[in-house]
Amino acid sequence: MPFSVLQAAKAAALDKELMSTCGYSIDQLMELAGLSVAQSVYKSYPPKTNPNCVVLCGPGNNGGDGLVAARHLKLFGYKQLKVYYPRPSKKPLFLNLEKQLAQFKIEVISKDDDQFSELNRELETSDIVIDALFGFSFHAPMRAPFDGVLANMLKAQEKGKKVVAVDIPSGWDVNEGPNNVQVAKYQPDVLISLTAPKPAALKLKKEARHFWGGRFISEDIAKRWGIEIPDYPGVDEVVEVENN
Amino acid sequence: MPFSVLQAAKAAALDKELMSTCGYSIDQLMELAGLSVAQSVYKSYPPKTNPNCVVLCGPGNNGGDGLVAARHLKLFGYKQLKVYYPRPSKKPLFLNLEKQLAQFKIEVISKDDDQFSELNRELETSDIVIDALFGFSFHAPMRAPFDGVLANMLKAQEKGKKVVAVDIPSGWDVNEGPNNVQVAKYQPDVLISLTAPKPAALKLKKEARHFWGGRFISEDIAKRWGIEIPDYPGVDEVVEVENN
Repeated sequence: MPFSVLQAAKAAALDKELMSTCGYSIDQLMELAGLSVAQSVYKSYPPKTNPNCVVLCGPGNNGGDGLVAARHLKLFGYKQLKVYYPRPSKKPLFLNLEKQLAQFKIEVISKDDDQFSELNRELETSDIVIDALFGFSFHAPMRAPFDGVLANMLKAQEKGKKVVAVDIPSGWDVNEGPNNVQVAKYQPDVLISLTAPKPAALKLKKEARHFWGGRFISEDIAKRWGIEIPDYPGVDEVVEVENN
Repeated sequence: MPFSVLQAAKAAALDKELMSTCGYSIDQLMELAGLSVAQSVYKSYPPKTNPNCVVLCGPGNNGGDGLVAARHLKLFGYKQLKVYYPRPSKKPLFLNLEKQLAQFKIEVISKDDDQFSELNRELETSDIVIDALFGFSFHAPMRAPFDGVLANMLKAQEKGKKVVAVDIPSGWDVNEGPNNVQVAKYQPDVLISLTAPKPAALKLKKEARHFWGGRFISEDIAKRWGIEIPDYPGVDEVVEVENN
């Protein structure tokens, strides 16, 4: 195994521990997670050659990581940046993340229609698509409108758009990988595993790049949870790891 | 003027705006500020040659930036890392920042005595001292025990320890610089200005290095507040600016 992995149940339990015993707030963890995502995108597809980017955000915390990442991507120089967020959360933290995006004049598209015409217009003009739809607490099947969002994203990928998945390729089973018909053909070009890779990361295609992010785990925690943290370079919040 | 500056009153008002209209939580801003501080320290005195570091934290938000920075410094590889924090805040965010440090086995020294024996032991074995005592809302004079903390820090600097100041060299007048007897001789080796430099930054000694951090301001805000943000390199949260 090229890297240590964290089963779905363990990932959820560790997340809980980070926000209780360890004293982290979700604001802090999401900020560092979103920053990791943005840094991975920059290292994979720098804005000079790939300035157009659309971030697809789901209704939960994976979507929140995407909202944070969008802000940092703007600050990193991605000029054409849109957020597609069809089921916005009403939680205060998420409303505030949207406020922050407004401040940066980043358009958040929250309306959708059966034809996904808004989404497809954005996908068409993008170089990079960030998949921040669902994370490690997802259970199949994916429901509307997200099944359609994913299907349209995959069509865009076929046309050459690059897909960066946040934590888990959306729709994959966290432990098993792409084990159902909705995602059988889905392989991201880049995966950024947060806190630690989940077993699904072992099912990545060989050509994919794989980053490890979320530099907020102590040696003590890593040891206790059986995570072998790779050496992060310098002050980076991400480290590229070998693919399977 | 080599960089645009923000008067004390304006800095306070902008901080307020960031946490209201802009939707930032203090957790987010402090996380990014502390990360900026840690990155500046790394760029100035990398851990390979300067592994020993003590962070002096005051009772307010400047101290909070120091607590966050300490965690990131540990993650960046500073092995011998202590926090001196004689008047710990009881606010939940600050208690949680201490919890996070405990998780990383970073010792926080909160007791003090008239001789500052604990402090001086740490200063003696340190290569770098982070001054996170007071920020832009400070008004002279500095009271006990912090006047003593500062005096001992200055003695350590005379012996060759490197001092990195967070946002404002503690005790300096935010607009005027080192304009009182307590800090007349205080010049940090490195200053990291957060959000934007304050006028005091123009009083830095020529040999000092000056970083600008807190990459969370939109172009819109910068324009409205008359801040000329320098170009941050790549994914860094800090940028070095020319000294006066």
